[in-house]
Amino acid sequence: MATVYGLGLGPGDPDLMTVRADRLLRGARHVAFFRKAGCEGQARSIVADLIPEGAAEHPMEYPVTTEIPFDDPRYNEILAAFYADCTAHLKALAEAGEDVVVLCEGDPFFYGSFMHLYTRLKDDVPVEVVPGITGMSAAWTATGAPITWGDDVLSVLPGTLPEEDLIRGLRAADAVVVMKMGRHLGKLRRALLMAGRADEAWIVEYASMKGQTVTRLKDYPGTSAPYFSIALIHGRGRRP
Amino acid sequence: MATVYGLGLGPGDPDLMTVRADRLLRGARHVAFFRKAGCEGQARSIVADLIPEGAAEHPMEYPVTTEIPFDDPRYNEILAAFYADCTAHLKALAEAGEDVVVLCEGDPFFYGSFMHLYTRLKDDVPVEVVPGITGMSAAWTATGAPITWGDDVLSVLPGTLPEEDLIRGLRAADAVVVMKMGRHLGKLRRALLMAGRADEAWIVEYASMKGQTVTRLKDYPGTSAPYFSIALIHGRGRRP
Repeated sequence: MATVYGLGLGPGDPDLMTVRADRLLRGARHVAFFRKAGCEGQARSIVADLIPEGAAEHPMEYPVTTEIPFDDPRYNEILAAFYADCTAHLKALAEAGEDVVVLCEGDPFFYGSFMHLYTRLKDDVPVEVVPGITGMSAAWTATGAPITWGDDVLSVLPGTLPEEDLIRGLRAADAVVVMKMGRHLGKLRRALLMAGRADEAWIVEYASMKGQTVTRLKDYPGTSAPYFSIALIHGRGRRP
Repeated sequence: MATVYGLGLGPGDPDLMTVRADRLLRGARHVAFFRKAGCEGQARSIVADLIPEGAAEHPMEYPVTTEIPFDDPRYNEILAAFYADCTAHLKALAEAGEDVVVLCEGDPFFYGSFMHLYTRLKDDVPVEVVPGITGMSAAWTATGAPITWGDDVLSVLPGTLPEEDLIRGLRAADAVVVMKMGRHLGKLRRALLMAGRADEAWIVEYASMKGQTVTRLKDYPGTSAPYFSIALIHGRGRRP
């Protein structure tokens, strides 16, 4: 039986892929990736120039993205059926002796969708995960300042959390990364004010990609941000 | 003036370096790295086979490592003088028109020593930081299970923290990574018990390197661990 590779592509700049991911992709005969229906797909667009000519492409199109709220039971049902379909497709390829590379933005095991395939495949098919640089690494690199020093605590908070949880998380950590911000920016601003950390926050759009911007959050206009935006607060640890 | 590169090497497997780091290193004429006196240096050993023949090597030897406690004022004085020396050396090379690659384990801006040079150099010399895969990414990849799902909060806790802070951090987060464990393993075990999370913890030694081990922490013998060990608890978020 062949292998399904969960290929971490890193934050978006193909130059920040690992040597291993680059080699596996350039040798791939089957390339699978998630995308929203009607779009090219972010993962595929990162490596558009690296996919070998003649490789078969296997787009996996989300049946829903934000049309149904996460807490609606239908959301889980529809997604579970979708992941089962994707899994069956990848498994059939592997059973036919064909290696498949699944493109994953960032690091496959750090948030992200590949893990839903991974947990369904791993007992039946050889699956290998290639870690990648996270979007947050690219974001703090873009700010030109270290995220953690000495004994700093770093917390990664999804922007989707309730405001009270954001406030508590912002107060408890030294360094903070806020992912999945998008429409939650207004809530994050309020939480930062309540936690007394509004002046420390930065927002990075499209880290390592075309259109990258780095702005102090207090100078950032508007109440929403592009999906690939990350807010962060640098640590303040021991500095000889 | 030439450029000083802070080159993230990733977790230890040279195959997990970025394409950019690999290219910069293979073309380097000057390679600098930290090491403990009398040792090869961990960063250098990762890339021993990639340093070009004829490249000048610039080891930077720590004047102290654990001989003086962090909170002794002499520690800061000695380290500050050391970093000033290193900075002067790198700056002189850059001013002479020679690019220098500084080898950094993991990601240069995520804990690590390069940032002490970076902050001293960045206003005088062009410095470029190449992010790398963190040791923690390699550790959770080694466990074969995703670290964060859905709306999980991830906290990174230095094992050097007081026990009370560890307990609080372990209780507040879903997923947890404990870095810098070493001699603090006994304290971490007590904190895990107090936080009610002892059964969830894993320890990974030498992630992605020769000698990698993955063990449930409760089955791990002893009260100390090698320096390159990471403890972690996986998240438990939404899973369609």
